[in-house]
Amino acid sequence: MWSLWPGRVINAGKSRHNEDQACCEVVYVEGRRSVTGAPREPSQSQGLCFYYWGLFDGHAGGGAAEMASRLLHRHIREQLKDLVEILQDPSPPPLCLPGTSGTPGCSDSTHLIGPQSCWSSQKEVTHESLVVGAIENAFQLMDEQMARERERRGHQVEGGCCALVVVYLLGKVYVANAGDSRVRCECNTLWPFALSGHSQPQGFLKPELLGGEFTHLEFPRRVQPKELGQRMLYRDQNMTGWAYKKIELEDLRFPLVCGEGKKARVMATIGVTRGLGDHNLKVCSSTLPIKPFLSCFPEVRVYDLTQYEHCPDDVLVLGTDGLWDVTNDCEVAATVDRVLSAYEPNDPSRYTALAQALVLGARGTPRDRGWRLPNNKLGSGDDISVFVIPLGGPGSYS
Amino acid sequence: MWSLWPGRVINAGKSRHNEDQACCEVVYVEGRRSVTGAPREPSQSQGLCFYYWGLFDGHAGGGAAEMASRLLHRHIREQLKDLVEILQDPSPPPLCLPGTSGTPGCSDSTHLIGPQSCWSSQKEVTHESLVVGAIENAFQLMDEQMARERERRGHQVEGGCCALVVVYLLGKVYVANAGDSRVRCECNTLWPFALSGHSQPQGFLKPELLGGEFTHLEFPRRVQPKELGQRMLYRDQNMTGWAYKKIELEDLRFPLVCGEGKKARVMATIGVTRGLGDHNLKVCSSTLPIKPFLSCFPEVRVYDLTQYEHCPDDVLVLGTDGLWDVTNDCEVAATVDRVLSAYEPNDPSRYTALAQALVLGARGTPRDRGWRLPNNKLGSGDDISVFVIPLGGPGSYS
Repeated sequence: MWSLWPGRVINAGKSRHNEDQACCEVVYVEGRRSVTGAPREPSQSQGLCFYYWGLFDGHAGGGAAEMASRLLHRHIREQLKDLVEILQDPSPPPLCLPGTSGTPGCSDSTHLIGPQSCWSSQKEVTHESLVVGAIENAFQLMDEQMARERERRGHQVEGGCCALVVVYLLGKVYVANAGDSRVRCECNTLWPFALSGHSQPQGFLKPELLGGEFTHLEFPRRVQPKELGQRMLYRDQNMTGWAYKKIELEDLRFPLVCGEGKKARVMATIGVTRGLGDHNLKVCSSTLPIKPFLSCFPEVRVYDLTQYEHCPDDVLVLGTDGLWDVTNDCEVAATVDRVLSAYEPNDPSRYTALAQALVLGARGTPRDRGWRLPNNKLGSGDDISVFVIPLGGPGSYS
Repeated sequence: MWSLWPGRVINAGKSRHNEDQACCEVVYVEGRRSVTGAPREPSQSQGLCFYYWGLFDGHAGGGAAEMASRLLHRHIREQLKDLVEILQDPSPPPLCLPGTSGTPGCSDSTHLIGPQSCWSSQKEVTHESLVVGAIENAFQLMDEQMARERERRGHQVEGGCCALVVVYLLGKVYVANAGDSRVRCECNTLWPFALSGHSQPQGFLKPELLGGEFTHLEFPRRVQPKELGQRMLYRDQNMTGWAYKKIELEDLRFPLVCGEGKKARVMATIGVTRGLGDHNLKVCSSTLPIKPFLSCFPEVRVYDLTQYEHCPDDVLVLGTDGLWDVTNDCEVAATVDRVLSAYEPNDPSRYTALAQALVLGARGTPRDRGWRLPNNKLGSGDDISVFVIPLGGPGSYS
């Protein structure tokens, strides 16, 4: 359990082995090289700063979450090093840069080659999309580093983790999500921002990796042998709706995805389709690897803070599924209102109090039969981590 | 050019070969069989009616569009025949039905088989998702029929088509879109409904079908041989942002998707990734087939008419890209206001007048240098088709 910014950590005390990890840093990025190759003037050598918050919800061991919390922001910094000058220059990013070996930069005059004239126009690439690309590549490099560490004896990275990361850079908030953690923006401005994290697994188009043990068709429940010849509801990889089909022998195979919502499992094993790590993961009682069906790429959304006015009550709430399993957007909004209004707008401790209230509200209190919420429902049995990030007014980071 | 419901057809007169087709029908669906297998009571044998509007924007010949306009609603009817009783029964759809050979119906008690308990819950399937599934399968069967006709000598189906279909059934509007036509709802209720149609092509995960001629990486423009060793902006299949990479030999291959917006082309050949037909389509100056990279499945959205109050000015505007290329949501909204307010609310000809105004507005008038819009920009050079569907009040279909 983490509350935070400017930095307070509290453990919920429900279990000894908390697999959640968190990280909150101000990261300075020094430019790696000049775009033009010319000697850099002092003004050009000015670096960039970004604010960083990361929540990492581990599974099957805490190794991946621990490693990601320690290193992911460094990968992001590395990716941004080439962009320091480009991001500070208001003109559009150059399409092409000189090679590292000192090849001269290319001109942007385009000679058309190929059967169509569709290349007469160049795509416009924004500064924003360069930062998104840097974050995406950082996630991939983090995942590859976990794979390398796995191969070193004694440095086995246990398990995998979901990662929810916020980067604030040059007036914009980038939210990158790989997994089932979620973020919610409590603003006057409308920003319905519930990243689902539950995307289709990669494997639907890789039937050759299913090893003849799984079917890519989805059924509302497991098909039983005695139902052969009957017609059951199903959907194919391209369908969002359902239809009936006659049950055949191969439909008795185990489904690639079974269950729904929190109980959904890919290949009967893992509950998320995005995340870092899990390089060792095999299908239960099988040698079939699951990693090829998972994606390490996050879904990234961008919020331009400069486009909106924000007051001290506008906050971003980041939470692992331990929070979101037992609460919802409306309840979180009510807690935000209740807690923040009890403090002076310029009291920075109000955000810490809010994070604590959200965590304690989701945990519940121990009673006769387990930890219970005020409505007597079971409290979250999962690790619970929350970041509260103020977007405007005193105590904000801008 | 079509205006329509209750049924008027006008050709824009710009070209002799209009590849747009349209269809507007009231379709009666008779139940195919009883769910229980028991003798059907008279009340159960009552069929269903749906209202149907379809716009088909052909390319590379008018055959596919013509065939789809003639047959797609029949495929939808066939798919709905098994659902007639189920859709009229308020209880949730049965997961399993008796087989056609008279196998007895299965019980819904689930015996868990397999390594995980994630099957203890059954998925909930709604009536709505059955209709969505029926429409999706109808699109696929339509596409398969085009493939079969292609193989018959003398019945070659030319080209392909985008398809935009609206089905009104049991109080709900289903909008199914495969291609780049669009629909816009002008309502008091907020329904921002701009179906994009431009999805990623299927082929990103099928590198073996790229024949070594294409790269799945995306660059902002075609890479030139002299740029080898330099660093250029690119993105990989999993990225939404951009990053720089060192240009290598295989990056000189032609890209799977090039260009952007209206000028985007899959394998340098076709401008849409969804649609019907195109079974003969090959990459320019190549024998590489493009069909495996296209999807015939529509994106389907559902609008529950019973949840909202509608007035006679609330309309659904369906248009092929000939309309949307030269106008936008705001201009369409202004035209809706202007034309409808010039008529009495209960005058059904106001919707025909609106469709005509939208088509004529996008076409422009012939002047010195081509067909021009009032703002002197070029009018649409494409075929233009528009349906205006009133959602409430006199003249509506409900």
